[in-house]
Amino acid sequence: MTKHLISLAATLALAAPVFAADEPEGAPSPNQIVDAAAPEEWVQIPAEDLLVMTLAPDAQGKAREVVIQLMPAPFSQGWVENIRTLARAEWYDDITVNRVQENYVVQWGDPNYDNPEAEGDAKPLPDGLKVMGEDAYEVSFSEGLVSHRYNRRGRQIATKPNVIETRPIGAPSPTNYSDPYAPFVGFSRGFPVGFTYIYDEAMRHPDYPSGTHRPDQIWPVHCYGMVGVGRGYSPDTGSGAELYVVNGHAPRHLDRNIALAGRIVSGMEHLSSLPRGSGALGFYTEEEFDKRTPILTVRVASDLPAEKQPRFEFLDTDSETFARYVEARANRRDPFFIHPAGGADICNIPIPVRPEPNG
Amino acid sequence: MTKHLISLAATLALAAPVFAADEPEGAPSPNQIVDAAAPEEWVQIPAEDLLVMTLAPDAQGKAREVVIQLMPAPFSQGWVENIRTLARAEWYDDITVNRVQENYVVQWGDPNYDNPEAEGDAKPLPDGLKVMGEDAYEVSFSEGLVSHRYNRRGRQIATKPNVIETRPIGAPSPTNYSDPYAPFVGFSRGFPVGFTYIYDEAMRHPDYPSGTHRPDQIWPVHCYGMVGVGRGYSPDTGSGAELYVVNGHAPRHLDRNIALAGRIVSGMEHLSSLPRGSGALGFYTEEEFDKRTPILTVRVASDLPAEKQPRFEFLDTDSETFARYVEARANRRDPFFIHPAGGADICNIPIPVRPEPNG
Repeated sequence: MTKHLISLAATLALAAPVFAADEPEGAPSPNQIVDAAAPEEWVQIPAEDLLVMTLAPDAQGKAREVVIQLMPAPFSQGWVENIRTLARAEWYDDITVNRVQENYVVQWGDPNYDNPEAEGDAKPLPDGLKVMGEDAYEVSFSEGLVSHRYNRRGRQIATKPNVIETRPIGAPSPTNYSDPYAPFVGFSRGFPVGFTYIYDEAMRHPDYPSGTHRPDQIWPVHCYGMVGVGRGYSPDTGSGAELYVVNGHAPRHLDRNIALAGRIVSGMEHLSSLPRGSGALGFYTEEEFDKRTPILTVRVASDLPAEKQPRFEFLDTDSETFARYVEARANRRDPFFIHPAGGADICNIPIPVRPEPNG
Repeated sequence: MTKHLISLAATLALAAPVFAADEPEGAPSPNQIVDAAAPEEWVQIPAEDLLVMTLAPDAQGKAREVVIQLMPAPFSQGWVENIRTLARAEWYDDITVNRVQENYVVQWGDPNYDNPEAEGDAKPLPDGLKVMGEDAYEVSFSEGLVSHRYNRRGRQIATKPNVIETRPIGAPSPTNYSDPYAPFVGFSRGFPVGFTYIYDEAMRHPDYPSGTHRPDQIWPVHCYGMVGVGRGYSPDTGSGAELYVVNGHAPRHLDRNIALAGRIVSGMEHLSSLPRGSGALGFYTEEEFDKRTPILTVRVASDLPAEKQPRFEFLDTDSETFARYVEARANRRDPFFIHPAGGADICNIPIPVRPEPNG
């Protein structure tokens, strides 16, 4: 019996121990570190930044809800505003998931884009959508430091004349691990980013090397679960009507080539487990249009009645607990591991997100 | 009409152009480079290295077949032999997929491992399985160069007294891009690997820096689609009875902590799109045991009648075309891209594998 239970625990242990009785002594796991975070280290996601996407029920009649967090300032705000406009115009209602490509992306939009014969039926877009430039794929701090600062609840607070206040809004906490795609990588306001440093005589912030370098260009990166804006050939940058989510190994070659607008914080499995399309790029072919999953509604959470608003929070990526979590992801010392790596990929450090305990 | 077709092409273009007429001029895409490879740059996978895993048909009665390529020497050969032994003993027949964890792994084995009450029903393992040591998670070249060389068809050829022959079997072609998990990364015999270099006075090979450094420790890495061997706590290393496949962003922290034994070359979508388990680590809970997908049979391809043997080949990772493909993955200049990254993640350079054209 004991032997079998050890086998059971062992089997389960591929990722983490389940049966405490069988668990050897060891350092806390990354998840255990997160579980011990102080309540004030969690940042509430504003309801204005959450989208609730309701898919048609599955074959067993079970409801399928996906919650998307839109990206906070200073990233991709033009596209984010377009997405709110599209949601509020109910433009996304009754569109479908048209593309499910293995180890790449799941994409949804107006299905008539896929069918030249139905051209006349393509949905007209609402008025007021912004046309974004390619320069908005990244954020530049070159024009001077933004001296605002946000508090733990994501709201901007008053500027004070001390050096901490000169930290640019959105300036990342770097990971210190190498990356093949960006000079530096880190986390900004709960999102993974790449960035460059630049010399700035006026800079006086202890978070940055030598006190005179600061982040220059910053851009969000394509990790699993990130939501992006489909586009055509340059100079098109997409409106936000056609969205995709990363459904496999991070396609980081898309960074700075296409806009990222958010990430899925709940319900990713409803998209990632959909049947793959057999057409080019994973689009469903005409013979399999019945596999397209209908999207019933997409709503901005703040527009829903209070009791129906989802409430999520993420672990502050500037917090001490998050720094310990990153270090533990890079140097696994919990009982299952025998060889700590000494580094971690920015996309293999998932940002902890959870429903608000009292939400 | 033209405008709409451009929108259609544009939508499709998120990854690659489909409609040549709408495609701007540009450099060839990585896939176009691969398509132009010479026939002799493709390496046939020996039938002895292919496993055919037949799942129960899906809900629509459609057949589901998964083909796994076992890892070639010098990597993980003890586990690979165990897996052949288990397949030939028909031990894998009638086991099930017991775990589907979002953005991590899909795992299959004896379902009674999951059910302590069914303990007596756990399948006894066949005789003759090797017990592997943890040192076998990586391959050491420290004991001297292996002077054998394999030919394009994967067979060992005679040693000749010239310097080329001193290249160790399995020695990688490096990518030159940085990696947060390993000092160097590259490709060996069609698989992604991490490795270290060591000074060796006797080394005289033009492929390696300064002619006197050579790979020292080499290990396969956990990319999407790689197949590994479930294990318990150290010093257990697993037998091969419990297998998993990576189903999300590369969990590279598992490198050198667990054995990799191969990769899926066909049918990955049958595993990656399975419903996620709601239990700890993505195991199906008792209430959802009916979601476990039965595995009907697992056979070594060379044991099948010739006409039923799948035939696959991979692009030689030492070939000139592969080197061009790697460079193009790192510096996308095909028409969709505006910002080449200048680097690529070892797991974002999928090794081209295809059915043999005359197979």
